[in-house]
Amino acid sequence: MSIITLTTDFGLQDAYVAALKGGILGIAPECQIVDDTHEISPQKIVQGAFVLAAAAPYFPPQTIHVAVVDPGGGSERALLAAKADEQYYLAPDNGLLSLILQSSRRLEVRRLENQTLWAEKISSTFRGRDVLAPTAAHLAQGFPFEQVGSITQNYVTGDWLELELIGGALRARIIYCDRFGNLATNLSAIALRAWGGDNAAGVRVRHRRGEITGLRNTYADVTEGEPLLLVNSAGYLEIAVRAGSASRKLHYQEGDLLVVDFPSASS
Amino acid sequence: MSIITLTTDFGLQDAYVAALKGGILGIAPECQIVDDTHEISPQKIVQGAFVLAAAAPYFPPQTIHVAVVDPGGGSERALLAAKADEQYYLAPDNGLLSLILQSSRRLEVRRLENQTLWAEKISSTFRGRDVLAPTAAHLAQGFPFEQVGSITQNYVTGDWLELELIGGALRARIIYCDRFGNLATNLSAIALRAWGGDNAAGVRVRHRRGEITGLRNTYADVTEGEPLLLVNSAGYLEIAVRAGSASRKLHYQEGDLLVVDFPSASS
Amino acid sequence: MSIITLTTDFGLQDAYVAALKGGILGIAPECQIVDDTHEISPQKIVQGAFVLAAAAPYFPPQTIHVAVVDPGGGSERALLAAKADEQYYLAPDNGLLSLILQSSRRLEVRRLENQTLWAEKISSTFRGRDVLAPTAAHLAQGFPFEQVGSITQNYVTGDWLELELIGGALRARIIYCDRFGNLATNLSAIALRAWGGDNAAGVRVRHRRGEITGLRNTYADVTEGEPLLLVNSAGYLEIAVRAGSASRKLHYQEGDLLVVDFPSASS
Repeated sequence: MSIITLTTDFGLQDAYVAALKGGILGIAPECQIVDDTHEISPQKIVQGAFVLAAAAPYFPPQTIHVAVVDPGGGSERALLAAKADEQYYLAPDNGLLSLILQSSRRLEVRRLENQTLWAEKISSTFRGRDVLAPTAAHLAQGFPFEQVGSITQNYVTGDWLELELIGGALRARIIYCDRFGNLATNLSAIALRAWGGDNAAGVRVRHRRGEITGLRNTYADVTEGEPLLLVNSAGYLEIAVRAGSASRKLHYQEGDLLVVDFPSASS
Repeated sequence: MSIITLTTDFGLQDAYVAALKGGILGIAPECQIVDDTHEISPQKIVQGAFVLAAAAPYFPPQTIHVAVVDPGGGSERALLAAKADEQYYLAPDNGLLSLILQSSRRLEVRRLENQTLWAEKISSTFRGRDVLAPTAAHLAQGFPFEQVGSITQNYVTGDWLELELIGGALRARIIYCDRFGNLATNLSAIALRAWGGDNAAGVRVRHRRGEITGLRNTYADVTEGEPLLLVNSAGYLEIAVRAGSASRKLHYQEGDLLVVDFPSASS
Repeated sequence: MSIITLTTDFGLQDAYVAALKGGILGIAPECQIVDDTHEISPQKIVQGAFVLAAAAPYFPPQTIHVAVVDPGGGSERALLAAKADEQYYLAPDNGLLSLILQSSRRLEVRRLENQTLWAEKISSTFRGRDVLAPTAAHLAQGFPFEQVGSITQNYVTGDWLELELIGGALRARIIYCDRFGNLATNLSAIALRAWGGDNAAGVRVRHRRGEITGLRNTYADVTEGEPLLLVNSAGYLEIAVRAGSASRKLHYQEGDLLVVDFPSASS
């Protein structure tokens, strides 16, 4: 039985999510559909990219992830299918797959071109429903990934992923703040190790009210109410507060900038 | 494997939705349950009717739709089961099926009377849980539709469906405003063609701030920020704004009235 | 096919719920996962306990219920698995199972100790994901309940369950207010009968604005707008208003106290 996950900004009030699911079940009646979330803020690609990347590691191989955050309907932009670390991802080519594509190995990206897999009538505004969902359902039924469209190496990477180098330090960015006030940054564990080398574990984040130093494994490594740094499930540096909200304690929110360096390197 | 969809005003905080699903799975353990929505505003039958009608076309034949918006518990009102265009619908007889019944062919409506299909203990306030859900589950298991109760042709149609004729124009009504600000009216594509005849595609909607003319196929037919008229997935005339919110742009909301005519007819 | 229900305070915006489900489906790909709710107010154990107890009676035998409301991550507290009335419950040992354990017969409670069932890497903060969910999935696959850990009779019962005796009356407490304004108390039907004896059905609740007397079977036993007392699906005394909100009418909310007695006993 195949699994298809959905990550969208459709909300839960209207018929949009049901339309996606009805279309999928018409093609793949036995599949398991899992809602990652439908509460991405309208058109917030960065949020969608993060939730997708944070959820995917918990799913088994062959899971098919469909992500739809598609500002403006976006009929000019291509639609992508990616195979990465034995899972599949379908999304508009607008950066929504940025985190997945940046951190995955064994990567193969294709443009969706095989119209025999699509809905009969294609709406320019609901390509999630008319193209992404049915293509996902056909993959769930065993249709070969190689035939969804041609390989591309030319796809959009969110500029919100960029790290700026400023006088030996990195300028990173808060890309997601969750319900519990945890602050995910755009600094991947891979980049952290590349920049920090032997001093990566001594990473320091400077924020408006002070600084936090040292990568921790668990919340238990600090006392209650104290902030800490860790690598989250999406594979990115995150600021948390044990038994508290980092967002509230540090007054940070999505989009805010941080200065990151590796002080032990200079000692 | 059968599909059962749920459209309710139960919300997602309490145990009501789980109680529906637990009861269904006790009878039909293999069925696919899909949430259309549980966020219909409490007791807003019109909203429920719209979301149900907008979702249903995307589901495969034999899908069973359960809708529960039942103001006052409503023990006096009958409960209905309808077979329409090869799908099944179960709901209180309060207008919740109005849009489905108006636009479907091959229609058969029955009153739920077969108590052998119901929960052992019937609550007067949760007939969705105690009557509609178990009847749906038995249908999913192959119980014959003809035996749920006797045929009726006497059921409630929402008065919010009525179109008033005023001096050659129709007075229509906004019946649903979705998350993206799209405004669904109570003017069906069928009525549009019946009234407009050869001029149906030239339909004009006059609103407080001006007018919109001409039925479009896709958003791409207008420029960004411009309003347009189209037929939505439920089969009703809808006002949208490309890359924007019609509700915010035109200051319209659910319940508001519109004047609709066919100017090319009189030219 | 097994059923696993989820009751959490994770919300629906982030990737937490999907992580639970992905982990479960990796182990038990055929199981039916049902969301009781993920909208428990953060860290409100009482709410979680109530929704779990209100939903469980509608599920078939062998259903596995996972509940995660775990303030502070709570690595010191044990995790419990209970078998009660032929269903299974997994939750932190913080009172979340209080209502289930109080009202069930044929009860067997164990501490989760069998680490072979857990995720490979255990986070101290997401034991729901790393311990409860995979253990539930293994149970769904037929792993024997007796081997999840050793039996315990020493577990936390919420102090919010306590009834105080004051001069012949009971002081009870509102423990849950639902979307429709129904007010669930901490007075179980069992305790009601134990205290009230032959006069149990004549129970009287005194509140700020007056009193309500007599246990009813259905809303139809009173007129519209009138308050009534009934036993809810969780098996606890509840105050409702026919076709209205008891919370709004009586100005009561979660945590408020009530005086309960049995006037016919003293007559």
